[in-house]
Amino acid sequence: MIVQSEDLNLLTDLYQLTMAAAYYEKEMFAPATFSLFIREYPKDRGYFVSSGLTDVLDFLENFHFDQDALNYLEKTEMFSSDFLQYLSNLHFTGDVFAMPEGRIFFKDEPVLEVTAPIIQAQLVETFIINAMSLPITIAGKAARSVAAAKGRKLIDFSLRRTQGVDAGMKVARSSYIAGFDGTSNVLAGKMFDIPTSGTMAHSYVTSFEEEIDAFRAFADVFPNNTVLLIDTFDTVNGAHKAVEVAKEMADRGEKIKGVRLDSGDMTQLSKEVRGIFKEADMEDVFIFASGGYDEYKINDAVENDAEIDGFGVGTKMGTSADAPYLDIAYKLVQYDHRPLLKLSSGKKTLVNQKQVFRNTDNGRPTGDVIALRDETLEGDPLLIRAMHDGSRQINPESVHEIRERFMEELENLDDAYKRLKDPDEYQVELSPGLQKLQKEVVQKVKEKELGES
Amino acid sequence: MIVQSEDLNLLTDLYQLTMAAAYYEKEMFAPATFSLFIREYPKDRGYFVSSGLTDVLDFLENFHFDQDALNYLEKTEMFSSDFLQYLSNLHFTGDVFAMPEGRIFFKDEPVLEVTAPIIQAQLVETFIINAMSLPITIAGKAARSVAAAKGRKLIDFSLRRTQGVDAGMKVARSSYIAGFDGTSNVLAGKMFDIPTSGTMAHSYVTSFEEEIDAFRAFADVFPNNTVLLIDTFDTVNGAHKAVEVAKEMADRGEKIKGVRLDSGDMTQLSKEVRGIFKEADMEDVFIFASGGYDEYKINDAVENDAEIDGFGVGTKMGTSADAPYLDIAYKLVQYDHRPLLKLSSGKKTLVNQKQVFRNTDNGRPTGDVIALRDETLEGDPLLIRAMHDGSRQINPESVHEIRERFMEELENLDDAYKRLKDPDEYQVELSPGLQKLQKEVVQKVKEKELGES
Repeated sequence: MIVQSEDLNLLTDLYQLTMAAAYYEKEMFAPATFSLFIREYPKDRGYFVSSGLTDVLDFLENFHFDQDALNYLEKTEMFSSDFLQYLSNLHFTGDVFAMPEGRIFFKDEPVLEVTAPIIQAQLVETFIINAMSLPITIAGKAARSVAAAKGRKLIDFSLRRTQGVDAGMKVARSSYIAGFDGTSNVLAGKMFDIPTSGTMAHSYVTSFEEEIDAFRAFADVFPNNTVLLIDTFDTVNGAHKAVEVAKEMADRGEKIKGVRLDSGDMTQLSKEVRGIFKEADMEDVFIFASGGYDEYKINDAVENDAEIDGFGVGTKMGTSADAPYLDIAYKLVQYDHRPLLKLSSGKKTLVNQKQVFRNTDNGRPTGDVIALRDETLEGDPLLIRAMHDGSRQINPESVHEIRERFMEELENLDDAYKRLKDPDEYQVELSPGLQKLQKEVVQKVKEKELGES
Repeated sequence: MIVQSEDLNLLTDLYQLTMAAAYYEKEMFAPATFSLFIREYPKDRGYFVSSGLTDVLDFLENFHFDQDALNYLEKTEMFSSDFLQYLSNLHFTGDVFAMPEGRIFFKDEPVLEVTAPIIQAQLVETFIINAMSLPITIAGKAARSVAAAKGRKLIDFSLRRTQGVDAGMKVARSSYIAGFDGTSNVLAGKMFDIPTSGTMAHSYVTSFEEEIDAFRAFADVFPNNTVLLIDTFDTVNGAHKAVEVAKEMADRGEKIKGVRLDSGDMTQLSKEVRGIFKEADMEDVFIFASGGYDEYKINDAVENDAEIDGFGVGTKMGTSADAPYLDIAYKLVQYDHRPLLKLSSGKKTLVNQKQVFRNTDNGRPTGDVIALRDETLEGDPLLIRAMHDGSRQINPESVHEIRERFMEELENLDDAYKRLKDPDEYQVELSPGLQKLQKEVVQKVKEKELGES
């Protein structure tokens, strides 16, 4: 079962539709603003990376209920025919303010705000959260590997163990944006123009009578891309066989590209393998390692002077295993020009349409201010108008442009916020205007709903 | 970006294609058997649930490279035109042995084995692991909530925070198979015929001038499905307002269905809310709770006599947050009728085509034996022929059938293996035939590759 584009209209929580029906029957068509933000940093994270906006804009541009969807909703017998008729003509006609992909942002900051007639803005909630949540999660996780690798090459190897097909695509894209050099995922290579990488698995090696036969065959078929997997039986033993094949290649005027380690104490093994190739005057063979790597294990390898030139980073990055979800929310902050919030314990939201201003010193961020959207403050406003009256206002960007933006942002961010453990907390303040309005609304809600004064 | 069915042919790791090219150029077309199994239990898990086979069979039935895929591969300049020509005619012509969905299985047991010409069997690896991994993960996680809830109702609320779109669908399906009663995911309701559930969010409540107006409006539009979210401002306060609306409904001959709590100490609040409804002679109102629930938090609520009749289970189940991936592998165990394995440290595989036999006592599993496929042992053979020569051998099953199978299996499994923490380890042995062959092959490989004797 694969979700096709035309199915996405029903990729929503049922309550979005029941709420929409209630709004419709009560003739509530006024504009609403919903704000997408993250309430808490996951473990050891000190910043977030904006990612996923492209999918959101594509979805909003094509948002509609086709006959197939309407037939299903009719069959549930929950909705009036008037309402279903209304849905059949519904398109997204609203505005979106959002941070461009690849921008760094922080907790509580709106990364995207939707303003549209409340039925529309409500119905798109589930897809928007789903579309942004994993990309932000993965870009943040992958960026940590990039920091830990200190310039060594990183390839996304996660496709087989990502949480489904769509996750595999989002991981390839988001990890590339965050500074990875490529992916093993061929479809991601095709769809996003990301460099792909990969040569052989253990099955390949074992399918030959002898390990060295497998190496020879591969060198023969791919003389320009010979990376030999040498741990199928014993890594050191495998390295000696790889040298043998590398010499045969040299005799033919070809050059081995590298070897891959995939098990054991790879930091230690990499040094032995480097030694073995050094003895054969092939010091520059690329030593690639995979198997259980994440930012922590990469950091250990780098700190212990592993002779590893590149890492295949798989499952732990591809599922963000230490923090597989975000406390991300899409909250109604304004309806019919009235600023709103809920008071549910521990889940306060910031009212009204907002903007985030970033202050910098020589390009280095020093603190952000969350403000009302109509306030004008110093600093760089991070949210741009991405959609107006249902029309896209920004050109589609390639992953390469987004990646460049992020790499520059990351470069400019102080190391204190990028530490793998216990990063400093970046300063995010509320503008005086937002503070004042927030206080007024909280007070008013308490008086009205709780009888406090 | 949504992956469409026709894109799936390229949803693979690049090395599958480079290996395939090497096999092709070296004229290696003999049959290979790959075995899918899980090496370790995730934290606190004592069993696995087979899930995902339907997607695998659908994929294999439709496996082919279309022109668009071939054009991309050509553009990479990695592959010969002969090989691309060969790919253009490739379909899956192999056999699949697999456990039916909904069966319980254990570590090291093959849950699926593919036998096909090696190029085919290799090329489908990435998709197969991806298609089985999350469903097995989620079914196992969800089954733990089912055990903890002791008969209370469970609804999948995870769609917005699942790792992408495909994950949202797989979670809805797998949690339903594992005993959940429904999902909030409308598309899953449509595609799998799963009951859907949901009424209102906080945004709905705050969009009205007063909380009670929101309740009244909903009761008016959905008199048969009135579940009121009462924690937007204050849960106890909200409960009193819900009673007021429930009384108005009663006066009209209607009946409130329930209330939902979503924040705070919900075990304590549920008792207060029950008391408030009791005073109004509405003891049977359904109290539903959501917000951060997983098997542990459900267990706490149940142990502390929470007055909660149903739980919305979201993010932590939908990402299997405490164990977001499996140590799942698809390993070559036979090529050209030769039994195979790799020796890489800590990653030993069981050679050859296999079968799993389950012994039972009055229907209760007492121990499994992993055997060679051609051995005949006592007990129930778990792997069935799901595909032969590329044709499906089993009828597609509804999720309802699969759910029933699983519920019966779960009922029969001893509690010791189902404990939420530190479950017992179920006994899985190797047959004498498999032990003997395994030993022979290990010995032979060591002699040949490592020069040991």
